Amino acid sequence: MNGLFDPRSVAVVGASDDPAKWGYWLAKGALRGAARREVYLVNGRADRVQGRRSHRRLADLPESPELVAIVTPPASFAAVVEDALAADARYLVGITAGVDRAYPGGHAVLAARVRAAGARLLGPTCMGVYDGAAGLALTWGSLTPGPIGVVSQSGSVGLEIGYLATRAGLGLSRFVSVGAQADLTTADLLDPVITAPHTRVVIVYLEDLSLGRSLITLADQARALGKRIILLAVGGSAAGGRAVDSHTGALATPDTAVDALCDAAGVIRVHTPAQAVHAARICLTGALPARPRLAVVADSGGQGALAAEFAERAGIEVPALTPGTVETLARLLPEDAGLSNPIDLAGAGEADLRIYPRVAQVVATEVDVVLLTGYFGAYAADSPALRDAEEAAARELLGVPCLVHAMRTDGPAADVLRDGGVPVFDRVDDPIGALAAYCRADDGIRPEQIHSPPGGEPADLRSILAAEGVVFPDGGFAATPEEAAALAAGLGGTVVLKAVGPAHKTEVGGVVLGLTSAQAVQAGAAEMAGRLDLDGFWVERQAASGIELIVGARRDRHLGVLVTVGSGGVLAELVADTATALGPLDHAGALRLLGRTKAARLLDGWRGAPPCDLDSVARAVVAVGRVLAARPDLTELEVNPLLARPGETLALDLLATLGGR
Amino acid sequence: MNGLFDPRSVAVVGASDDPAKWGYWLAKGALRGAARREVYLVNGRADRVQGRRSHRRLADLPESPELVAIVTPPASFAAVVEDALAADARYLVGITAGVDRAYPGGHAVLAARVRAAGARLLGPTCMGVYDGAAGLALTWGSLTPGPIGVVSQSGSVGLEIGYLATRAGLGLSRFVSVGAQADLTTADLLDPVITAPHTRVVIVYLEDLSLGRSLITLADQARALGKRIILLAVGGSAAGGRAVDSHTGALATPDTAVDALCDAAGVIRVHTPAQAVHAARICLTGALPARPRLAVVADSGGQGALAAEFAERAGIEVPALTPGTVETLARLLPEDAGLSNPIDLAGAGEADLRIYPRVAQVVATEVDVVLLTGYFGAYAADSPALRDAEEAAARELLGVPCLVHAMRTDGPAADVLRDGGVPVFDRVDDPIGALAAYCRADDGIRPEQIHSPPGGEPADLRSILAAEGVVFPDGGFAATPEEAAALAAGLGGTVVLKAVGPAHKTEVGGVVLGLTSAQAVQAGAAEMAGRLDLDGFWVERQAASGIELIVGARRDRHLGVLVTVGSGGVLAELVADTATALGPLDHAGALRLLGRTKAARLLDGWRGAPPCDLDSVARAVVAVGRVLAARPDLTELEVNPLLARPGETLALDLLATLGGR
Repeated sequence: MNGLFDPRSVAVVGASDDPAKWGYWLAKGALRGAARREVYLVNGRADRVQGRRSHRRLADLPESPELVAIVTPPASFAAVVEDALAADARYLVGITAGVDRAYPGGHAVLAARVRAAGARLLGPTCMGVYDGAAGLALTWGSLTPGPIGVVSQSGSVGLEIGYLATRAGLGLSRFVSVGAQADLTTADLLDPVITAPHTRVVIVYLEDLSLGRSLITLADQARALGKRIILLAVGGSAAGGRAVDSHTGALATPDTAVDALCDAAGVIRVHTPAQAVHAARICLTGALPARPRLAVVADSGGQGALAAEFAERAGIEVPALTPGTVETLARLLPEDAGLSNPIDLAGAGEADLRIYPRVAQVVATEVDVVLLTGYFGAYAADSPALRDAEEAAARELLGVPCLVHAMRTDGPAADVLRDGGVPVFDRVDDPIGALAAYCRADDGIRPEQIHSPPGGEPADLRSILAAEGVVFPDGGFAATPEEAAALAAGLGGTVVLKAVGPAHKTEVGGVVLGLTSAQAVQAGAAEMAGRLDLDGFWVERQAASGIELIVGARRDRHLGVLVTVGSGGVLAELVADTATALGPLDHAGALRLLGRTKAARLLDGWRGAPPCDLDSVARAVVAVGRVLAARPDLTELEVNPLLARPGETLALDLLATLGGR
Repeated sequence: MNGLFDPRSVAVVGASDDPAKWGYWLAKGALRGAARREVYLVNGRADRVQGRRSHRRLADLPESPELVAIVTPPASFAAVVEDALAADARYLVGITAGVDRAYPGGHAVLAARVRAAGARLLGPTCMGVYDGAAGLALTWGSLTPGPIGVVSQSGSVGLEIGYLATRAGLGLSRFVSVGAQADLTTADLLDPVITAPHTRVVIVYLEDLSLGRSLITLADQARALGKRIILLAVGGSAAGGRAVDSHTGALATPDTAVDALCDAAGVIRVHTPAQAVHAARICLTGALPARPRLAVVADSGGQGALAAEFAERAGIEVPALTPGTVETLARLLPEDAGLSNPIDLAGAGEADLRIYPRVAQVVATEVDVVLLTGYFGAYAADSPALRDAEEAAARELLGVPCLVHAMRTDGPAADVLRDGGVPVFDRVDDPIGALAAYCRADDGIRPEQIHSPPGGEPADLRSILAAEGVVFPDGGFAATPEEAAALAAGLGGTVVLKAVGPAHKTEVGGVVLGLTSAQAVQAGAAEMAGRLDLDGFWVERQAASGIELIVGARRDRHLGVLVTVGSGGVLAELVADTATALGPLDHAGALRLLGRTKAARLLDGWRGAPPCDLDSVARAVVAVGRVLAARPDLTELEVNPLLARPGETLALDLLATLGGR
């Protein structure tokens, strides 16, 4: 797709002299690349635009333009597309909004027309395309070249990321606003942004999840190239949901599904454009391991405590240092310094700037990344006489995996750090927030690749699940009260009697618990039969008390099977103790998902109680996911409660929702 | 304390020409105020400092300096103090660190000496004092005058707040670094910062809570003047705790205690200096009600959805708009605009800049504050031709309660907004985070003012609590197994038998449940007596099942009684469902504290169950707080479990910890 990002020639149809119009910015941006490629401005009513000769129609150009950007009103869009295809353009960029209503047949016909002519279309209703290395700037405002690739389902959000990147001293490699995705989709466009050699990290903004599981493949591809993907997505709240509905017509995306996708893909999830840019800065440092352990080095106890506490709140490990390291620090620092983690230099840095790199070097032997917070980076900005000493100290820091928060970021030492790949932040919130997002993206649960779907076509879901290792209480079907009594006698002990047939069994009095004799079962069944319209009875051994879990799977339109496990019973509704992953899961994945719930602590021998059989719980989680995956006629499958006790795990009830995909 | 912030004359002892030294910055800062007051530089080895005549000793000055700032090494500190007192200085500012070890007798003797001479001391080990209106700048670097008052237990954190305020286009009214608080305490210094007429909002940084409940009085005083207090505090996490310990020797402050204090005082709690500054910007807008309802107005669906979702995640209400308002918006905006909340202008703003104030005016009729997010404020920065139109639109916005997030904040329209009191943010995270902190500070629970302490001196805590309305199960003391049997017969039904005397009754087999006959009680008691060293028996009616709660109070060194209520039993440890307030509480306060727990949903008739008696639960909460308040010999008092059932609430066990205060 190089012709989209680095075309040999570009035409802007609708080029304008009015800086309040998109036609102005596209023409201006296109002309910036005029040294590298032919740029043609087209305006139906002018011969000159922005001081350059312009053409009235595409047909007047001396050559075929490889890329045509269209900024004309919707009514003329179809005619311009025909002109572009007639001129043998390979890529069309539709900035124009409102095309779906204006184009005969709408977006689908438009896309088919373009593809039939051998061309591809970006947009319409998009905010253009940018390539920092190729000098292509077909968008509003002015972006800065740099290492961040951006693919955005909102042009404004994409541009905002570009502005924030510039402010952070960075810029964009490629930016593409996908617009209405009439032809080229988000997934199509992610590939050339990820693989571009000048892209070192990628930010994606999504308003729908039509990308689906292809994000996993794309993220794998990116990681193989040493690049990470950062995802900004909306749809998890009521207000957010309203806006997305009105904006693209895509269904609101539940938040947990986005989290499950990011988890499976190893994608870093953030919630604002600023968070995205700061996460990118963390990724660009390059050498961080999966869950970096942090040391905080501060000029004062206050700044150190604030940073360390904020980091621990965010889930980052701030380990205490070993006695050997503390001793080494004690030799470097004054008596009233703080030698644990956070390290409080207690003024030693301001007395001798070389203390900063020395302490960072010592501490870096024990942690993965050092956060310097305080005045370092700002000394020379306030006191120019300190310039040489501070720059020298900054150069010594470059070898250390380091993030710097400086009270001023406009000094020369800050430049040395940035040029050397050490990011400098103007508030401590940013590196810590970004590091926390980075940590959360680790150690995800991947869905299982199923080769042989379970179950074949047996009579019922219960048998299919049983074949997958889910254990139901002993029991059976009885056509009459007499058969029910005989079944109960055979089972022995306390039994449960259920009516077969009626919906909402419990509510209509179709379930009786605690029956201890065959006579009682027969009497109960006869009473039910007289009251309810039923097809027979189910009699099963009543389970002793245990820990109630809920295991469910649902089919998401874009993401496929999502598996959820959590506390059941009162806990389920009260504390919302659930964890969700893309399914189906294998046994190891099921165990890890379980491990993310609070219920796992109950199962694992809470307060000295004998532990439950985690393996049999995990088997049920695996089975529910696999069976839903193999049964496209179902949208949901739920075992609730799944009762876990030491030595046994029983599926006490099963609910399936029909719906198909 | 006006002499500390606006002295008639200032002397800096230890004034220096070396910009790496504090003596340089204090001298430079002092000289900036030379038009308003006499400034004397003192240096024992120089006759000129910073191009000005200096003195060798304080005794050489032609007049008595009202304020003396001391930057000399700790060894000479005592002598300089004597010189200053001899020269009749009223305020001493001790920048010097390490004085506690160097001064004969340490800080306490130093403070007594200064006070005996009729003077007051700030510090030592502090980073100075600043008054923007009085032109007093006795600190490092350069601060900007403005409306924010800062009192900080860490000088570095205070200065960082000053730098961040400057970057946000604001500045400081008064800043004071309290240092070691040898004489003047944080509470002493808060008063003149709050009451200064040029202070409009106050940020406090605390590393210990020795301020205690006086924060409530100070916050009330501030609110009476139309000013809010914002609190930044550390001590809630392991790493934070380590640092604070090493820094000031104060005990780490548990996080919930800080929250309870802020809650009672109506103080806005934040966790970083940047959050503090942005919260101050929200307070400075002035007119916001307690829990502002937010409308988001965005150029695009993406930016609107991101902002609205981020706000709802943070707990801010983003209400849907009424049909009438939606209709009005529909007449103003294009067909594909989003008319609910968030409002998506869909390009209407860029087509006509007047749309921004018009839409904001319409929306402001339904909410308390409007957040504009997108390009507005940045148009003229990118397109100077739009300057007049954008500035006019900005002026129209000034009447609307409004926060603006602009992709660039360096344009002329942004200046119009800021000058008119509308804050402009360069990322949407900041206004939303600050608004969320502002919302959380509302609707706090105040401790009760007790006039008559409960209980007098009766025999035991159980009786005292019972007199306060706590109900224990029917039962009584029995000296012998025979008496126990007689008691059980009198009680009837199922009883519990407990050994009186042994610690850890349950663990040693000193509790038997479910006894249904007098014979069984007698046999059980005889068996216990043969096995345990006991003082007798307690026999009580066994309670039926119910909802287990925990109600406790503990005495904090600085904050006094803290009352905690939450779920008991398994829930208590698993989900940490507790709420804490400063105690003791009155009945209404107890009910509100209960309402903050998840347990409240269980009590209130969960899943159609009959509701429990909330009033009797609240009575127990009130009683536990009051009794602890009245009994300084106790550090903790806990009823666990408190069993709530429809119609009755029973205290099943009581634990008191002795310790005194």
